[in-house]
Amino acid sequence: MTQVIRSSAELREKVATWKRSGMLVGVVPTMGALHDGHMSLVREARKQSDRVIVTIFVNPMQFNNPDDLTKYPRDEAHDLALLEAEGVDVLFAPGVDEVYPNGFATKVSVSGISEPLEGAFRPGHFDGVATVVSKLFGMTQAGRAFFGEKDWQQLQVVKRLVEDLNIPIRIIGCPTIREEDGLAMSSRNVRLTSEERASAPKLHAQMQAAAEAIRAGTPVETALNAAKDALQAEGFGTWDYLELRTADGLRPLESLSEPARMLAAVMLGDVRLIDNIAV
Amino acid sequence: MTQVIRSSAELREKVATWKRSGMLVGVVPTMGALHDGHMSLVREARKQSDRVIVTIFVNPMQFNNPDDLTKYPRDEAHDLALLEAEGVDVLFAPGVDEVYPNGFATKVSVSGISEPLEGAFRPGHFDGVATVVSKLFGMTQAGRAFFGEKDWQQLQVVKRLVEDLNIPIRIIGCPTIREEDGLAMSSRNVRLTSEERASAPKLHAQMQAAAEAIRAGTPVETALNAAKDALQAEGFGTWDYLELRTADGLRPLESLSEPARMLAAVMLGDVRLIDNIAV
Repeated sequence: MTQVIRSSAELREKVATWKRSGMLVGVVPTMGALHDGHMSLVREARKQSDRVIVTIFVNPMQFNNPDDLTKYPRDEAHDLALLEAEGVDVLFAPGVDEVYPNGFATKVSVSGISEPLEGAFRPGHFDGVATVVSKLFGMTQAGRAFFGEKDWQQLQVVKRLVEDLNIPIRIIGCPTIREEDGLAMSSRNVRLTSEERASAPKLHAQMQAAAEAIRAGTPVETALNAAKDALQAEGFGTWDYLELRTADGLRPLESLSEPARMLAAVMLGDVRLIDNIAV
Repeated sequence: MTQVIRSSAELREKVATWKRSGMLVGVVPTMGALHDGHMSLVREARKQSDRVIVTIFVNPMQFNNPDDLTKYPRDEAHDLALLEAEGVDVLFAPGVDEVYPNGFATKVSVSGISEPLEGAFRPGHFDGVATVVSKLFGMTQAGRAFFGEKDWQQLQVVKRLVEDLNIPIRIIGCPTIREEDGLAMSSRNVRLTSEERASAPKLHAQMQAAAEAIRAGTPVETALNAAKDALQAEGFGTWDYLELRTADGLRPLESLSEPARMLAAVMLGDVRLIDNIAV
């Protein structure tokens, strides 16, 4: 039976009783609209923790685009049923006033790693992420937190912030879960038309092809441009970026001199798709 | 026997053993150069906690003036002797590289309350305070932290930040400790010449006179201007501010309509004195 908690005071009491019995608490922070990607995080949390909290909070502070915030899919009843089935102990689903009460004035920001890629195209996004994640860690007092590699840059920002602020929690990154055709699972995928949905897996396919070309010696820029052109021809819209970066620090890379990640963001119709793979 | 710890990993282990036995940990964050003001915090921490950590870290991030940072008094051996005498369990005195290792990139900032007064005259100061205090709370995992009312605005900033980031710690403000002649104790007082030291208590005396006048019905501006003029005549230098503000939110106040605090910052020779009193 998953207990739904909406107040941080009530959550703190619940967690205190667990901690008094020496239990390790795991948290999976989400914005709801749960899919198999989230559920893989929940299963990992279940394995690695004595008690599991899933948080659902569509955080206004991390949406630079108000329209994206309005359209973000929400279905708590459906989400709760999925969490029940996985034996999650607590669904923490606070309202906006609980997270940002009157007088709220604090911001956590991470420079450097949060500036390129998503940071360049979504101003303020990672400040919103860093702030809400700091709050959720404070509220849940969890010892482990589980994040998807799907949001690779976010995962690096959260790792940096936890190290920098000495927050006593371990951050566990979990592999991206994909549809059978290769499309990375995302809550925003439901907004694709059926035609767009049919084209969407080409993003991952072209990224894989580019990665293979780079590994085989094709210059990075040549390989990335080929992938960009191919997707443009397939009806994809504006590219925000398709880049090769160092895996941890997200510094630009012109050759495979260290562990690398290829990261992409591109419009398909009205939906902004992001993806990333190891190279 | 006070144990000196310099690494946050070692501190974390120490605290973990205390917490496993259910002990409440109190922390007194300082920049060293300890005086009776600090010791009153230590005694309060001793009363309210099972184990007491005093931190000494002269935090470069909160010094807007490099000269002030260089001249800040340091005498760890003397400080340690004082802490031993009070039965402090741990002196945590990390180096700059331990607190801000290579790659450090995170900043905590509090808007609103940190902007006027000290915030206006010391750009970046409260970002430095908020960031290092967040780190020290993470490192010490303390349940209570003790701060002096001498730095009234800092105390309000820290309270705001702890509430906003849901950090599980209670902030205890302790009254300003004064010399017999009324001068608020401060590590910077040792930098006053003997002539300046003789004039310094006039700051507190004039503030008290102004507070009394305001309580008796004198308009706020009239009372504050009289105090400013009197101190100027006594050889005090530039005023940064002398203001009446709401006690918690530090909003400007033109009459005693709610709990009020009078706050001052003024130069005396080369030394910047700050003080505040309830009105």
